Amino acid sequence: MAQKLTKREEDYSKWYNELVVRADLAENSAVRGSMVIKPYGYAIWEKMQAELDLKFKQTGHQNAYFPLFIPKSFFSKEASHVEGFAKECAVVTHYRLKNDPDGKGVIVDEEAKLEEELIVRPTSETIIWDTYRRWVQSYRDLPLKINQWANVVRWEMRTRLFLRTAEFLWQEGHTAHATKVEAIEEAETMLEVYANFVQNFMAIPVIKGVKTESERFAGALETYCIEALMQDGKALQAGTSHFLGQNFAKAFDVKYASKEGKEEYVWATSWGVSTRLIGALIMTHSDDNGLVLPPNLAPYQVVIVPIYKGEDQLVQISAKAKEIKQNLEKVGVSVHFDNRDTHKPGWKFAEYELKGVPLRIAMGPRDLENNTVELARRDNMTKSVESMDGIEQRIKSLLEDIQDNLFNKAQTFNDQNTHTVNDWEDFQAKIAAGGFVLAHWDGTAETEEKIKTETKATIRCIPLEGDKQAGKCVYTGQDSVQRVVFARAY
Amino acid sequence: MAQKLTKREEDYSKWYNELVVRADLAENSAVRGSMVIKPYGYAIWEKMQAELDLKFKQTGHQNAYFPLFIPKSFFSKEASHVEGFAKECAVVTHYRLKNDPDGKGVIVDEEAKLEEELIVRPTSETIIWDTYRRWVQSYRDLPLKINQWANVVRWEMRTRLFLRTAEFLWQEGHTAHATKVEAIEEAETMLEVYANFVQNFMAIPVIKGVKTESERFAGALETYCIEALMQDGKALQAGTSHFLGQNFAKAFDVKYASKEGKEEYVWATSWGVSTRLIGALIMTHSDDNGLVLPPNLAPYQVVIVPIYKGEDQLVQISAKAKEIKQNLEKVGVSVHFDNRDTHKPGWKFAEYELKGVPLRIAMGPRDLENNTVELARRDNMTKSVESMDGIEQRIKSLLEDIQDNLFNKAQTFNDQNTHTVNDWEDFQAKIAAGGFVLAHWDGTAETEEKIKTETKATIRCIPLEGDKQAGKCVYTGQDSVQRVVFARAY
Repeated sequence: MAQKLTKREEDYSKWYNELVVRADLAENSAVRGSMVIKPYGYAIWEKMQAELDLKFKQTGHQNAYFPLFIPKSFFSKEASHVEGFAKECAVVTHYRLKNDPDGKGVIVDEEAKLEEELIVRPTSETIIWDTYRRWVQSYRDLPLKINQWANVVRWEMRTRLFLRTAEFLWQEGHTAHATKVEAIEEAETMLEVYANFVQNFMAIPVIKGVKTESERFAGALETYCIEALMQDGKALQAGTSHFLGQNFAKAFDVKYASKEGKEEYVWATSWGVSTRLIGALIMTHSDDNGLVLPPNLAPYQVVIVPIYKGEDQLVQISAKAKEIKQNLEKVGVSVHFDNRDTHKPGWKFAEYELKGVPLRIAMGPRDLENNTVELARRDNMTKSVESMDGIEQRIKSLLEDIQDNLFNKAQTFNDQNTHTVNDWEDFQAKIAAGGFVLAHWDGTAETEEKIKTETKATIRCIPLEGDKQAGKCVYTGQDSVQRVVFARAY
Repeated sequence: MAQKLTKREEDYSKWYNELVVRADLAENSAVRGSMVIKPYGYAIWEKMQAELDLKFKQTGHQNAYFPLFIPKSFFSKEASHVEGFAKECAVVTHYRLKNDPDGKGVIVDEEAKLEEELIVRPTSETIIWDTYRRWVQSYRDLPLKINQWANVVRWEMRTRLFLRTAEFLWQEGHTAHATKVEAIEEAETMLEVYANFVQNFMAIPVIKGVKTESERFAGALETYCIEALMQDGKALQAGTSHFLGQNFAKAFDVKYASKEGKEEYVWATSWGVSTRLIGALIMTHSDDNGLVLPPNLAPYQVVIVPIYKGEDQLVQISAKAKEIKQNLEKVGVSVHFDNRDTHKPGWKFAEYELKGVPLRIAMGPRDLENNTVELARRDNMTKSVESMDGIEQRIKSLLEDIQDNLFNKAQTFNDQNTHTVNDWEDFQAKIAAGGFVLAHWDGTAETEEKIKTETKATIRCIPLEGDKQAGKCVYTGQDSVQRVVFARAY
């Protein structure tokens, strides 16, 4: 606690790395690129999971579990999928170790070589569609709306905690439908589920859109996405939902007999969000003092710190603190009472600031006399002295206020850093300064690539909402149907 | 649905395999030894997870997540652990595929070979204790009480759905303590958590005990276990909790400074249960008609099947059925209303019998007239006609009754198949007939091994409760401290 965090304006990337470790969210492990998600970080993920899982079930999905390993040959079955995915991944080649003859530990038993190598899943379309072939015969078996909570592995060269790790946790939905229309509806529904979750639960504003062809998921006909803007002006893709057409059905021969008895290929979607969202959470709300958590995601929303000298005072304060804790828990507020005598109040204040606890209650002997407590908000760092009477309702409404305030603050930041640009020089300047840039684009992959090469900006999405007027491409001057969102991105 | 299940007495093993697939619990996948857990089976696992997770948190544990991969060298660090675990496991040797020059799919890129192979975790003691070294410095950091929900891989040669699969899902608790006494207490507490869960939630009676030295977990000083008895007279280990002493602390150099400033090694426990418990659930309660589920674990506890001719009747019945469904859900009962017109009532009856839904409600036009419903219990296959008035409370109490009845039935089976034996011939006969055999044992690994070779029976546990009188070994006639539990086992 002694040392302060690096400030964001000094080195944003360093600030992020320090924060993740010091707020006890995650750390690097002995395995290159694989992180340990610490209990405090995992508690945030559990809250995200619980909310998402509820929304998935409310929209008619069920959970299931498919194998971690995928036979190598499966990746070759869908041509564009293999191009996008099968290359950088963990390959299992053997199934046994044996004692090293030199007596020093164990070595791979070369006799236990697999006939066909197994790939640790980087995503599960192939193994799932291989399974769906057995599950789908008739239109009666459709739709199939299944989600999986799982770990996946993509062998990333440069890794960063939460943002890009070799192994990460996610959910992946995989659905099968009788018609194209229904599959597109599903992909759009899940985009809405994600957008609502990220905006209302995580307090992160997003732009909803579709990817350009070159940014699409490998194997998709359309990739819907939500894009968020981080404090350093870089975009972060916060969730994707893919309309996969009949590509996987054809690759894995999944057909159904229609009501009319005709054999048809099945239509598919897949959609996912991952622990990467925790990175987005950090980079949207946190500040130079540490993590800032929206109350919906805080492992505990309120911490009570007693200010006391000697055992007697602690006993008195504890009695009152426990009463408040109980009353708060009755109205659904989670509370941590930190009565450790191994640390001073000032140390605890700094600790809970660093960990982003939304509300801190400090209680000393004078508070007991006056029937008051000191409340400190983490979001705007303001303090107030409040009567203990009706404190539960006061805190409940403060927490709602904090949740709203964090969203509004982030939305204001987004608005201030979203620029409508018509001129190429202005475009370059605005991209270099950071933020979303709304500009016209002629719709060609060639122009997209040139802009990327010259400015490092990619088309984050073709937005689904807002201004849809035609214009001229900011780079080529050719016709453009609508403005698209450019940014440098994580 | 056309074909009946194989009967248990014809072929128990075949009955089990058929049941798992036909009740939609799980199936084999394209990856040898890896299963797909289907939505209906996964819903049962989710109920188990929710209850266990609650109990873990109530006993002061937090969840976290550790890497899937473990560096090969870690397994050699704890000598007895490597003997027990590191051999049959999935080994990652490469991290990239490339296009096959012959144009047919992908092959392993031999240039992307890992310097040190990675093992897909068969259990996580090593990677977790490597992490704990960084987390533990002082007595203030202890105890560390962490659980992980994860997938693990053990390369089994003969696999069976749920009972023995290459990949399975489980939870593994890993705790670190300042004292030996506290660690032993923890291991015993978790045994109690497991025993209560399996008995009260899953309705499976168990014997609590400790393993003999030769049956202990690799690296443990004491393995506590719960043992259940399946309908075919074979035992199944339903959960284990290990006191690991300081073995892993020494192997991974995890020390803490005590209050007195002395450096000490940390004391450890680990404990886990897995999807194997679903196998135990099936083999404890189910019958020749299919699955039988205790209400606590049923994805839906009640199914309503309408009996109707024509649309008009269906509309009338549906209105009443939906009312009952809503009222039941208000009192916490989960209900599925199956109004599909693609299947006949008889087909649905058989389907829900096969899937083990605890209570079935059938409603026809005459029921509407008479203000009645027909209730059918899955556990004892009895039917009754009941008034709709107060039906919610009636059903609630019936579900409790079913839960109790299933436990009692299983307990009676266990009692009838638990034999106290003093004579070697009788021992052999009783073991061959199936069941738990309580017999004296001289305490040597040699005798244990001989008995195993001659009868295929292993010592399931040295029971913690019940008769503790001394006697003479059933095999050697040597002194014995107390009777132990023998059985053939899964």
